[in-house]
Amino acid sequence: MTTPGLSPTLLVLDAEPRPRLGRLTGRARIEYADESDLAERLPHADVLLVWDFTSHAVRAAWPGDGPRPRWVHTASAGVDHLMCPELAASDTVVTNARGVFDEPIAEYVAALVLAMAKDLPRTLEFQRERTWRHRESQRVGGSRAVVVGSGPIGRAITRTLGALGITTALVGRTPRTGVHGPEDLDRLLARADWVVAAAPLTEDTRGMFDARRFGVMQPSARFVNVGRGQLVDEDALAEALSRHWIAGAALDVFEAEPLTAASPLWQLPGLIVSPHMSGDTVGWRDELGAQFVKMYEDWAAGRPLPNVVDKKRGYVPGH
Amino acid sequence: MTTPGLSPTLLVLDAEPRPRLGRLTGRARIEYADESDLAERLPHADVLLVWDFTSHAVRAAWPGDGPRPRWVHTASAGVDHLMCPELAASDTVVTNARGVFDEPIAEYVAALVLAMAKDLPRTLEFQRERTWRHRESQRVGGSRAVVVGSGPIGRAITRTLGALGITTALVGRTPRTGVHGPEDLDRLLARADWVVAAAPLTEDTRGMFDARRFGVMQPSARFVNVGRGQLVDEDALAEALSRHWIAGAALDVFEAEPLTAASPLWQLPGLIVSPHMSGDTVGWRDELGAQFVKMYEDWAAGRPLPNVVDKKRGYVPGH
Repeated sequence: MTTPGLSPTLLVLDAEPRPRLGRLTGRARIEYADESDLAERLPHADVLLVWDFTSHAVRAAWPGDGPRPRWVHTASAGVDHLMCPELAASDTVVTNARGVFDEPIAEYVAALVLAMAKDLPRTLEFQRERTWRHRESQRVGGSRAVVVGSGPIGRAITRTLGALGITTALVGRTPRTGVHGPEDLDRLLARADWVVAAAPLTEDTRGMFDARRFGVMQPSARFVNVGRGQLVDEDALAEALSRHWIAGAALDVFEAEPLTAASPLWQLPGLIVSPHMSGDTVGWRDELGAQFVKMYEDWAAGRPLPNVVDKKRGYVPGH
Repeated sequence: MTTPGLSPTLLVLDAEPRPRLGRLTGRARIEYADESDLAERLPHADVLLVWDFTSHAVRAAWPGDGPRPRWVHTASAGVDHLMCPELAASDTVVTNARGVFDEPIAEYVAALVLAMAKDLPRTLEFQRERTWRHRESQRVGGSRAVVVGSGPIGRAITRTLGALGITTALVGRTPRTGVHGPEDLDRLLARADWVVAAAPLTEDTRGMFDARRFGVMQPSARFVNVGRGQLVDEDALAEALSRHWIAGAALDVFEAEPLTAASPLWQLPGLIVSPHMSGDTVGWRDELGAQFVKMYEDWAAGRPLPNVVDKKRGYVPGH
């Protein structure tokens, strides 16, 4: 509800540390909300910045009464935590942080792939036990990877693994040059040494890595998830690892985050657990803040916004 | 001492598993020695294959009496374990396993660099403690590495780190295109994020990573040794880590191998210890055996041998 002559109201769903929005001084009335007062503040906001990208509060608050922001930006690549049918059906534009995480996540996947090939977790165990135990490890050069998710993150992963001499196949929703369609997935899984999940969470991808798909993989295959926890049936993965259907896995994302101390996943043999950190390299919050500030300047000047999410599909379409 | 009409005697300094030498049947009289009878058997051998590349027995046995093999091949990249003044001064040709380890070691270095950048050892500690602790990690793209050792292993490391977006400088004994000379080393160390030791052990390189050189490095720098343990003053490295002169290190080689359970290195904060395995990927022994068989065929046919070591310098010179 912009009043002519007044700055738009920018509501920030807050998290520490706060974004640096100093450049917007005088160009936005900046207000902060948390999960408890988001619903109350939402009708008075022109723009919503979802800075706390771990929160599901937007999805809960959005269907309520009153006006809604015309633009919602989330400081994350995925939008699954905020989408709801009412937001999808509305005129509100949703944008994401496309681009910020691509290279960091690609490096993180390379780190996991190399650590598993070189048996680094066991090396660190032997070190703790002060035991010298020489083993043979694996080459990654000449091995084969399937990367599921053909957005900029999946493509960056493909480039980085390719630079290590790994032959990669990229799988997306829509087949195109350099991208396989879903119909090729099982055939590719059956011959992959590395399977990397980097897809957005949508109704098509939810639970796609299930018992059947782990069963299709080679006993020597290893699985990496840097997308969303809900892409994976965690019970099926636990069984696949216990029964040696696959040789190992690394999860950076989980159905429920943070993982509780009681979760059996912490101690599953052959599984590396990391706390949703694959894209978060030094300076990432500043980069997310700067990206939003630039987009706000575009929006305020009436220029078209980049990174506009297709709300029906649940991600930013295109190359 | 080849007798015309008789096959040459090939003496193998043995280790389990033995090399596959079946292709040499009828073309060599193959005998096996261990450390206890090497000196006794040496005068009767035309060729010595140092298959047990962890042994220093050649260096001990060589100065004794009697004829000596005309050719010594070691199934390793380094020749420091067998060289002695008498062998260096002799007419005997020494060859090494140049080429077999280049790509495996380069991948191993990439694994260590990425693991340290992404804080993977601490992630595995937190996993063991069932603790969800998000941290920021580091980009490797845009960082700087110095690789010391401009042979094929050092060059492969440089290529692989370069493929990950790391700016690399290579340092060798002789400056040439793409290779810095020793006089540039300290200047390069002072601005490196990653320092990788991949040089042969010679009188020039012994102990080159000492207190002064660790003092030159940045507090954020990390050091990796995949060359020889004796390149490093281990006490100085321990102090550099304890005093936070550098941020971390990974050693795959040590002054004394295997590292004993009593060594303080196992528990040094910020140090990854691995059991001299960087080049040893599945199939490596077969590859070493096949490389020797091919070289034996060259030798028996009077063709020039590849991988001839400059015995004064202690490595195979040239590109």
